[in-house]
Amino acid sequence: MAEPKEMTITVDDQTTQVAEGTTGNDLFAEEKTTVVMKVDGVLQDLFRVIPAGASVERVDITDQEGLEVLRHSTAHVLAQAVQELHPGAKLGIGPFIEDGFYYDFDVDEPFTPEDLKDIQKRMMRIVKAGQTFDRRAVDETQAREELANEPYKLQLLDRQHDAEAAAEGAAVEIGAGEITIYDNVDRKGEVVWYDLCRGPHIPSTKLIANGFALTRAAGAYWLGSENNPQLQRIYGTAWASKDDLVAYQERIAEAERRDHRKIGAEMDLFSFPDELGSGLPVFHPKGGIIRKEMEDYSRRRHEEAGYEFVYTPHITKQNLYETSGHLDWYADGMFPPMHIDEVRDEETGEVTRAGADYYLKPMNCPMHNLIFASRGRSYRELPLRLFEFGSVYRYEKSGVVHGLTRVRGMTQDDAHIYCTEDQMKDELTTTLNFVLDLLKDFGLDDFYLELSTRDPEKYVGSEEVWDNATQVLAEVAEASGLELVDDPGGAAFYGPKISVQARDALGRTWQMSTIQLDFNLPERFDLEYQAADGTRQRPVMIHRALFGSIERFMGVITEHYAGAFPAWLAPEQVIAIPVAEAFNDYLYDIVDKLKARGIRARVDDSTDRFPKKIRTAAKHKAPFVLIAGGEDTEANAVSFRFRDGSQDNGVPVDEAIERIVTAVEQRQQV
Amino acid sequence: MAEPKEMTITVDDQTTQVAEGTTGNDLFAEEKTTVVMKVDGVLQDLFRVIPAGASVERVDITDQEGLEVLRHSTAHVLAQAVQELHPGAKLGIGPFIEDGFYYDFDVDEPFTPEDLKDIQKRMMRIVKAGQTFDRRAVDETQAREELANEPYKLQLLDRQHDAEAAAEGAAVEIGAGEITIYDNVDRKGEVVWYDLCRGPHIPSTKLIANGFALTRAAGAYWLGSENNPQLQRIYGTAWASKDDLVAYQERIAEAERRDHRKIGAEMDLFSFPDELGSGLPVFHPKGGIIRKEMEDYSRRRHEEAGYEFVYTPHITKQNLYETSGHLDWYADGMFPPMHIDEVRDEETGEVTRAGADYYLKPMNCPMHNLIFASRGRSYRELPLRLFEFGSVYRYEKSGVVHGLTRVRGMTQDDAHIYCTEDQMKDELTTTLNFVLDLLKDFGLDDFYLELSTRDPEKYVGSEEVWDNATQVLAEVAEASGLELVDDPGGAAFYGPKISVQARDALGRTWQMSTIQLDFNLPERFDLEYQAADGTRQRPVMIHRALFGSIERFMGVITEHYAGAFPAWLAPEQVIAIPVAEAFNDYLYDIVDKLKARGIRARVDDSTDRFPKKIRTAAKHKAPFVLIAGGEDTEANAVSFRFRDGSQDNGVPVDEAIERIVTAVEQRQQV
Repeated sequence: MAEPKEMTITVDDQTTQVAEGTTGNDLFAEEKTTVVMKVDGVLQDLFRVIPAGASVERVDITDQEGLEVLRHSTAHVLAQAVQELHPGAKLGIGPFIEDGFYYDFDVDEPFTPEDLKDIQKRMMRIVKAGQTFDRRAVDETQAREELANEPYKLQLLDRQHDAEAAAEGAAVEIGAGEITIYDNVDRKGEVVWYDLCRGPHIPSTKLIANGFALTRAAGAYWLGSENNPQLQRIYGTAWASKDDLVAYQERIAEAERRDHRKIGAEMDLFSFPDELGSGLPVFHPKGGIIRKEMEDYSRRRHEEAGYEFVYTPHITKQNLYETSGHLDWYADGMFPPMHIDEVRDEETGEVTRAGADYYLKPMNCPMHNLIFASRGRSYRELPLRLFEFGSVYRYEKSGVVHGLTRVRGMTQDDAHIYCTEDQMKDELTTTLNFVLDLLKDFGLDDFYLELSTRDPEKYVGSEEVWDNATQVLAEVAEASGLELVDDPGGAAFYGPKISVQARDALGRTWQMSTIQLDFNLPERFDLEYQAADGTRQRPVMIHRALFGSIERFMGVITEHYAGAFPAWLAPEQVIAIPVAEAFNDYLYDIVDKLKARGIRARVDDSTDRFPKKIRTAAKHKAPFVLIAGGEDTEANAVSFRFRDGSQDNGVPVDEAIERIVTAVEQRQQV
Repeated sequence: MAEPKEMTITVDDQTTQVAEGTTGNDLFAEEKTTVVMKVDGVLQDLFRVIPAGASVERVDITDQEGLEVLRHSTAHVLAQAVQELHPGAKLGIGPFIEDGFYYDFDVDEPFTPEDLKDIQKRMMRIVKAGQTFDRRAVDETQAREELANEPYKLQLLDRQHDAEAAAEGAAVEIGAGEITIYDNVDRKGEVVWYDLCRGPHIPSTKLIANGFALTRAAGAYWLGSENNPQLQRIYGTAWASKDDLVAYQERIAEAERRDHRKIGAEMDLFSFPDELGSGLPVFHPKGGIIRKEMEDYSRRRHEEAGYEFVYTPHITKQNLYETSGHLDWYADGMFPPMHIDEVRDEETGEVTRAGADYYLKPMNCPMHNLIFASRGRSYRELPLRLFEFGSVYRYEKSGVVHGLTRVRGMTQDDAHIYCTEDQMKDELTTTLNFVLDLLKDFGLDDFYLELSTRDPEKYVGSEEVWDNATQVLAEVAEASGLELVDDPGGAAFYGPKISVQARDALGRTWQMSTIQLDFNLPERFDLEYQAADGTRQRPVMIHRALFGSIERFMGVITEHYAGAFPAWLAPEQVIAIPVAEAFNDYLYDIVDKLKARGIRARVDDSTDRFPKKIRTAAKHKAPFVLIAGGEDTEANAVSFRFRDGSQDNGVPVDEAIERIVTAVEQRQQV
């Protein structure tokens, strides 16, 4: 027997000699958590033979790509289980999604929760059986024969066929048209189930272990089109281990508990009246307190930072958005126009009232430009920082509207800075520090920055201007000391930007603030200032919103704080509870003193019993509950009860008041 | 010769015996300033014979009706002068108007300012000639003959003819169809000019004396219709005396000087960009300071007064305004809808996106009602006072849009109070006192109230409810001690109201604030609260805006203060001017101290010379100009220069700072 020939390959960046015919299974036999490999950048099943000279990377079950393969394989297990339990079920598609997977089925009846339990049990049996996923390339005729009972799979073959016919004559990628079937094979070597699939898959269902769960079922149109039949979709989640699954389930439960829509209703902060239409929230008095505190704070900070306050209307004739270009590139995001008919004299045909289309503003910038351009500007006036709480309206698609975090009407803490090129770096630095400082006062302190740079296919202005500006933005971002993530090509056509991404209490990332350079609008509005040398120059324009929108920011911090707002934001800062009615008067006095110091305080003097009052106060999430009984009144003291249930008893009244006032004034994150 | 018969008449409420055939001239021969008389309530020429039993009133040249006759006679003099100087000029009409008169002429060329001077001179000659106005009743044929050269007068005869033909068969007022011509007769008894006219007129052109002036010429369509030829209109003013004329001219000049549109442009406060459309102002940074001060002040006061702050969007689907009824009775005042098309599946015909008409809100009330109705309400929560700076949009006709005082987009300091019937009186009283107190801080302190009551033809709710509410409003108004003017039938259909009318520095009256009861919306929105006895009750609803709209209020106070805003509102509170550059540093220190106390202050460190800086500061209307020279610095002092040009020299710096801070904090009307 001849020795097998050797070949050179690279494995995880190490060059090595292996026998010809070596597979991924051979290479990573020792590493049991290997789910697939990447051969020259392409994910492949581990049983595939590695070609000479290839570069191979191991993909672990805990890697993002490994998890995605695991989730897709779990979808196959789901489909196998469903067809075992519901033999008539026809298969749709079953991809991985964020944190999990789904599979669509054509069944007579929607799945019940009971069905899901049974299916999950059956899946567990398949997982334990240690089935392998075997790959077969087949020709179209063979595929159609094997899938004769699966009408949706046949449709997928039709689509692939049509796509190839369409590409005829054009260069077709090798293998793009290859049809593959994955067989699930049991330990006896028998094919127990198969599916039309591109793969790759995990080496054995055993890897799914205890890390999966079905989550819910819902209707879904075949291929997402409302013209197609409705199928039944089962969603699931899958993780590298039981621990990861539990952690995920806890995160989900916590996110649900913190859902700002739920908290908003419970705490009577805001609502979304059907009468107004989707994405148009109203703020109730308690939500109004939080919003007003946010706005007061923002106004004060902007005033200190040298911003000037302007006010502009919410509508304009179309001309403005023709000048700005929004009607060219943003019309889809705008509400339709309010059309005023032209009126003509019947006899003479003369126009006696000009027609006009009025639009709701989707952005404030064009109006601020009008103010800049309302008179001649000198370099001495720059930087000019125009600030407005500007309410804008955007016609977001129904599907994406969500609570306060994606609305159709929002108020931005919007400003536009006009400065010279020399001032640009200072302005950007100041603005970034301003943002970060402001976000910290709202309890957000875990940030990274994203730098969105030029899309070479789509930009206005010169490359040189872009490069220079991007360089400056990068320097400013780096000087902040924060993690900087590149977003190459992610800039809007009119300029590069830095966005501030904040992680909330649940570790979720929110894009909060953007600092955006604009090379387009100063041109379009022909904005100019007179420089020191008497020449006319274009100002640099910076768009920036710190909260982003007040609505969205409020949604985010409601979830971040789970409704337990720090004292300065809390709608009710102090609820005073007497141990018995006899102590009401004592607490009225204290509450009056607190009110005189600007604290939102009240005595719960209802007829409820003491423990009920404590429970009610907990529901209101007041940062300070003050309790008074006999001992307290004798000592001229009061007892604190905090949201975590802890108490601080017998605090002298004056000290208690100072403690509360200080927490509010210093915006302590209590 | 027989004695003339006597008859009994009443003259200015005195019964008296006079000879038959007595005229007004006979009765009032001694009172040289008599211009016409009122016989049984109808104005008549003094030469008319008084019928027996008549009640006669003397009308003096200083009475409103006397002035109107004087002005109309002056229009005749104008027309006579024009036809003397421009023999081809054809006559239109020449009525009196507020403070004056006009006459329209068909001439080949518009009148030049030079023409007006010549015409005024010629008028003076006619005035001095002491012509009388003689009245002749003529039949239509005669009139047409005499006016054969006046095509527009012939048209007037046509119209009268047609109107009478139309009224045929109906009861026609005696004399309504009478045609009269007034002859201007000189001292020789010759008719020098005549005009088709109903009269009456003054007894002699001499009464016009020096109290008239032509003011301007402008084009105007014949009978106000754009389909008719354009005539040239000459405007003039006429008064009882030269002194009255001068006083009027000074008032006009003062009003022009105070025109908020002019001041707004000069002080760079706001503008009305064409790009946005008519009635849509933008506030520049300096106007933004005033507006923000107004809003901050209003917010603080409303917070203290127990209002709760809510926020609602600027648009809604049409349903809301169907529920509120606005689309029935207010659609004309609203911008047209933004129409979202319904989308239907082509095959199934199923609606996949509901169509909707979105409207800009013209009023905030329906949205506040949604907040009231968002959950069950208890009597314990009442009065509930929901406040919002709500921007509303109303499609005012182009002709009435004017600066900030009549706009299409406005922000109301709007609140709705929901209370029990028992609380109504207290709430109305508190609200009225709140309004008056607030207006006083803006320098307005000359008020009267108007009480608009039920129009018996048009109201909702029971008579009893109206009567009771009107009674309460009247009591509240009377308790304020202010003058109360009745406006019977002036209420909107949904409830009676009190409006606060304020007189400004020029004595002009502005309707500022309204306190409006509403019996309609609580019904339409089915608003309820649970009363102490457990029953469900309708709350009383009060609409109130104190500023009215911020835009209009700002327009009014800009004119009231003529741009010289009191220190707390002034965009620039302190301008510090060094006598020479050497004192810049000294003033920088003072300005820094002022800024630290929250004062808007700056040093004029430009290269301008001292007197120029003083003039510039005067133009900016800063309440405090601080000057520093050698003596000041040695004494650690500073000199004040006030807007009236007076000075206060050598004020110690600390005292100067305190004086400024106090003026701002106490909102002194400086």
